[in-house]
Amino acid sequence: MTSPASLDSLKSKLREIHHLHDAAAVLSWDQETYMPAGSGAIRAEQLATLQTLAHNQFTSPEVESLLGSFVDIDTGTILPNQETTLDDTAHALLRETWRDFSRAKKLPSSFVNKLERECSLAQQIWQEARKTNDFQRFLPNLERLVRLKQQEAEYLSYTDSPYNALLDTFEPGSTVAQLRPLFAELRTHLIRLLDQIRNSPVQPNTSLLTQSFDTAKQVDFGRLVLKQMGYNFQRGRLDLSAHPFTTAFHPTDARVTTRVFEKDMPSCLFSCIHEGGHGLYEQGLSPQHYGTPLGEAISLGIHESQSRLWENSVGRSQAFWKYLYPKLQETFPEQLGAVQAEEFYLAINQVVPSLVRVEADELTYNLHIMVRFEIELEVIEGRVEVDELPELWNAKIEEYLGVTPSNDAEGVLQDVHWSFGAFGYFPTYTLGNLYAAMLFQQAKQDMADLEQNIGQGNFLPLKNWLNDRVHKWGRQYSASDLIQQVTGQALTSEPFVKDLEEKFGNLYQFST
Amino acid sequence: MTSPASLDSLKSKLREIHHLHDAAAVLSWDQETYMPAGSGAIRAEQLATLQTLAHNQFTSPEVESLLGSFVDIDTGTILPNQETTLDDTAHALLRETWRDFSRAKKLPSSFVNKLERECSLAQQIWQEARKTNDFQRFLPNLERLVRLKQQEAEYLSYTDSPYNALLDTFEPGSTVAQLRPLFAELRTHLIRLLDQIRNSPVQPNTSLLTQSFDTAKQVDFGRLVLKQMGYNFQRGRLDLSAHPFTTAFHPTDARVTTRVFEKDMPSCLFSCIHEGGHGLYEQGLSPQHYGTPLGEAISLGIHESQSRLWENSVGRSQAFWKYLYPKLQETFPEQLGAVQAEEFYLAINQVVPSLVRVEADELTYNLHIMVRFEIELEVIEGRVEVDELPELWNAKIEEYLGVTPSNDAEGVLQDVHWSFGAFGYFPTYTLGNLYAAMLFQQAKQDMADLEQNIGQGNFLPLKNWLNDRVHKWGRQYSASDLIQQVTGQALTSEPFVKDLEEKFGNLYQFST
Repeated sequence: MTSPASLDSLKSKLREIHHLHDAAAVLSWDQETYMPAGSGAIRAEQLATLQTLAHNQFTSPEVESLLGSFVDIDTGTILPNQETTLDDTAHALLRETWRDFSRAKKLPSSFVNKLERECSLAQQIWQEARKTNDFQRFLPNLERLVRLKQQEAEYLSYTDSPYNALLDTFEPGSTVAQLRPLFAELRTHLIRLLDQIRNSPVQPNTSLLTQSFDTAKQVDFGRLVLKQMGYNFQRGRLDLSAHPFTTAFHPTDARVTTRVFEKDMPSCLFSCIHEGGHGLYEQGLSPQHYGTPLGEAISLGIHESQSRLWENSVGRSQAFWKYLYPKLQETFPEQLGAVQAEEFYLAINQVVPSLVRVEADELTYNLHIMVRFEIELEVIEGRVEVDELPELWNAKIEEYLGVTPSNDAEGVLQDVHWSFGAFGYFPTYTLGNLYAAMLFQQAKQDMADLEQNIGQGNFLPLKNWLNDRVHKWGRQYSASDLIQQVTGQALTSEPFVKDLEEKFGNLYQFST
Repeated sequence: MTSPASLDSLKSKLREIHHLHDAAAVLSWDQETYMPAGSGAIRAEQLATLQTLAHNQFTSPEVESLLGSFVDIDTGTILPNQETTLDDTAHALLRETWRDFSRAKKLPSSFVNKLERECSLAQQIWQEARKTNDFQRFLPNLERLVRLKQQEAEYLSYTDSPYNALLDTFEPGSTVAQLRPLFAELRTHLIRLLDQIRNSPVQPNTSLLTQSFDTAKQVDFGRLVLKQMGYNFQRGRLDLSAHPFTTAFHPTDARVTTRVFEKDMPSCLFSCIHEGGHGLYEQGLSPQHYGTPLGEAISLGIHESQSRLWENSVGRSQAFWKYLYPKLQETFPEQLGAVQAEEFYLAINQVVPSLVRVEADELTYNLHIMVRFEIELEVIEGRVEVDELPELWNAKIEEYLGVTPSNDAEGVLQDVHWSFGAFGYFPTYTLGNLYAAMLFQQAKQDMADLEQNIGQGNFLPLKNWLNDRVHKWGRQYSASDLIQQVTGQALTSEPFVKDLEEKFGNLYQFST
């Protein structure tokens, strides 16, 4: 029998390794926010060293031996002599640690180093390529990244599709076989609703959102909303970056970023709310389990459910603006003083097929995801070459959304994800939308006065509910188990579709 | 014979280890500038892990073996079979690498980890203690740090005084036996000059510097001066922090910070110039030698010579303000429009004994250093207990400067250094002043039009001269060799005293 002390040894080693990941995350945050333009090359090397070291330490004989005193290192099964001494938490800790360990062991250190270096450089090239609308500039990097990701899938091994290996990185347990029918069904509903909206006589006046809004005031307002949501600025911060993101180095240091445009007020506002949802998840993780899987978010889909729940279920609801709209009017009296709350509410909920995912409404957003999912499948499964992507992108966007990019900057170059090797990541956005609707439906059932509270600016009951039901567990449960446990149902698009039908039926005056 | 490839292996390994130091430096920069208040504890742990790892890697059998194929690992002597194959650069690289290696080997990894952790925590406690003027709050941390530094000296071994071991960390080759007479002689001159200034009828009107100056405009002006000095903002940045500092992660990313007070204009201005001098050194190091000792600054004294040269020899000179004062007037027309350049020049050169080192003039500054040097000696050599420091501090400040702190925040708690374990660091400030005067004297000899150029805002000849004579060499030469080589003299306080006599003789109208 192993003494409890040695589980502590394992945790302590994991925490030490996590410090390296945290350091890399600080360097990445710095790269996106404040790093001088001239030091991209060396930053890529520094990051590669940190990630390689973390990888080497995690796959070291030391960790293997610590972990191996509890589980069969080949299968992950808890050793018979440990079964009775370990509680549920320890079981979950070992299950998830073994999952990470066995995946990491499959990737050679030299490969991890190469991939890290490629990603860091590709991100910088992508930024320039997007700025100059020059896909050819980015092409060699993207080609190398695709080959590396295909290679990664081979190292990790998979059934059915190499894409499953990549998907499993971001959404453990998710597969192409699960997503295809889920997305197909969802697509039918979205297309139906989109048709109804297209045929509606209602025309939101979105020009009120594209007046001139002082950027500093916008960011201040975003900060105010974050505070109101319960995001703790003693344990986080808000900065500007090209692409909004959330990063955390510990529950006491979970940072969000936004971007701000003078003539696009919703961009900063909803980025803040969205990233705030992510930030609350990170601030709500257990400090006690920091450094171990139980101190980490379950999956990107669950992470995204938190941002989407706040952004859409809360941030685009009537109740939310009942409370907040007068404050927004006070901030921008010239622009919004004469605009009715209803008119504003309709404008921020406009549904219109467009080119850019991050600016898309909550309905068509998912069509953007489906386009990316299908393109990624083609590329990773090797049926399409990287240099064909701009054309394929434009064709699919036209097929799904009926609009055509006029250049690659608003087409295939628009997203940062591929530049850091995140293939298999996009589907988690739509999964997040579906989880969010399921969770919010449950929250309303659990708290009869939820909407009333939101209408009074009291978001804390919702934040606490999420802390309690989702955040604090870390990876104690899988995504499907957690959703089943909290909502009593398996993953389904029904609540999401129902929400869309209700909201847009009302706004656009149609019945479903 | 070892092939040249294996010197590359050594360099490559050193660079990789350097990435960890760089990462730690980014985390420290972040801690001082943007880190949320609530995450101090975890940051201390993250830093400790990085430093320990770097230490372990540097003292690993791998480095020992790589280094050992060129030098006798016990003595540092180049192996006979290598002598002829290595050029001067390689000799210097191996000499300095062995110096670092043999010092590092003497410090056990557990000790380094403990010290790192203590320092990071103590820094945060010190900040609070200074804010609340509460030395008792800081006392236990400082006691632990002193004990750790005494222990460090024992590990490193020393002759004469444990203080020599600490001094040698910051100023290799410097000893108590060298500093005592140097400082004693300097002190005699300073006291004499201070008496003459005290007896002068000239009274600078410094109230013009403490009017209200918009803080954003002050920082903008600091940025303008930095640009003019040749500090490259594509390879650096300027931020705010409680205590101004410079940090670099590579010559392409050398950052400076300043602080800014509405009613103390010189503080931000001269911090920018001072840190700019440090920043130019870091930006001027050889990227080719990055990660190895030849890509690092020689010593803190030489580093400080760069900041002091710019701050005092240039930034407080008449020529400098001939060019810059009209621009400063344009920036602050209300405050300075009616103030003559001469009056301003006199005000920024006021000599008056005061309590706070970082706000001290260039003459009395050195008396502050002597106080700290003597106190540190007492404490490290064990003749004085840490809890006696506030009293000892006040007594010495009164003896040297004739003023008495009214509380510990403006007394013993004023400096950040001890909170990060930097005992033996302060003397390098005065050494920096002496080196600066020697270098500037030489620069004037080498460039007859130097003053004229400065008067026209053309600082590039001076920057290039420093790049060429000092920066680019890294640790190729020791401090004393470099000074000898550039100026043809050994370290002396003569040029410094001569500069003071000339400048203050003119300003305060006395003859020496």
